[in-house]
Amino acid sequence: MGKRGKFITLEGGEGVGKSTLLADLRAKLRARGIAVQLAREPGGTALGEAVRALLLDPASRSMSAESELLLMFASRAQLVRELVLPTLKTGGWVLSDRYVDASYAYQGGGRLVPDARICALEEWVCAGLKPDLTLLLDLPVSTGRARIVRRGNMDRIETETDAFFERVRERYRRRAEAESGRFCVIDASLAPAQVLQASMVAVNRLIKASA
Amino acid sequence: MGKRGKFITLEGGEGVGKSTLLADLRAKLRARGIAVQLAREPGGTALGEAVRALLLDPASRSMSAESELLLMFASRAQLVRELVLPTLKTGGWVLSDRYVDASYAYQGGGRLVPDARICALEEWVCAGLKPDLTLLLDLPVSTGRARIVRRGNMDRIETETDAFFERVRERYRRRAEAESGRFCVIDASLAPAQVLQASMVAVNRLIKASA
Repeated sequence: MGKRGKFITLEGGEGVGKSTLLADLRAKLRARGIAVQLAREPGGTALGEAVRALLLDPASRSMSAESELLLMFASRAQLVRELVLPTLKTGGWVLSDRYVDASYAYQGGGRLVPDARICALEEWVCAGLKPDLTLLLDLPVSTGRARIVRRGNMDRIETETDAFFERVRERYRRRAEAESGRFCVIDASLAPAQVLQASMVAVNRLIKASA
Repeated sequence: MGKRGKFITLEGGEGVGKSTLLADLRAKLRARGIAVQLAREPGGTALGEAVRALLLDPASRSMSAESELLLMFASRAQLVRELVLPTLKTGGWVLSDRYVDASYAYQGGGRLVPDARICALEEWVCAGLKPDLTLLLDLPVSTGRARIVRRGNMDRIETETDAFFERVRERYRRRAEAESGRFCVIDASLAPAQVLQASMVAVNRLIKASA
């Protein structure tokens, strides 16, 4: 039995550059000889991707906040059991575009679902799995929104109000403050190369710690 | 503001004849001048029907028990808010093919998910909504299974083991015993006309009580 791999999550609002950073980080880690498995939420498994399609479909406009939270955790339950835990167990690293912090930010902060609900689901569904490192890409809401609008074809979540996204950002920042050992907050207004560089400072610490 | 309508649920294992009884009951109630809305679980709303497709798809073989329970409640949350509560509020009656008892029977009894999980979800998601009457169609597992096999095209749940369905039946019967005021247990091996007649005894009590 080898060493357990590391679990790194990328968090942040809309248009903060998670996809670019994810690809860049994977390349860097692979160059170091580390086996990397990518994941995303919602999604990352066949079931999760089908749930993702429901969650993001602009036609799901009438979706209740309760259904949204339960679908997020249904996708997460499958991701943890089918992909993350088995990968970590064999020594692989997992890089995930969002994880449970996103439920606190979007369903808790954005939709105002009480934290106690999210906490109870986390305790049951996540089976104690916490990220080893969470990279929070922080950006003023207006900047991220402008990037999204330029990209076009907005999904159900992306069409939310600015007030919603301000609450999401605020909640992410509060979580990062409360768990500063796990979080690394990165200024996402920087150029991609600088965002990667800032991220690698934290990732390198993790590599050293696991060596 | 008129009187609140009544909420009747049909429960039971596979092949017990819920669909037939549902159609027969609707006809009887409509003949009495009662506005009836049909529902089913999982499903009953656009979102719920999409979730139903995921839950029953034989390709979802690797679905975790946690994901299954969360998807059931995601569908239920939407059904309660979008269809059941608004219908009852305007005086309409709702007849539903399954409701929360099914989660105790299938995910609790069948999948052995601890009751406390289901209880916590019920408390939050169902917002206090209990059926006024639950008709439990009870049938030996082998009889119901034979009907299903004859019908062909089994879904993911229907392909479970006999032991699974024995636990489902047992759990249903225990719930009916514990809440005998709400449940009416019907011998589903009877002919459809007799099943309807037995059901109407209980439904007539409800009609009288609401007159």
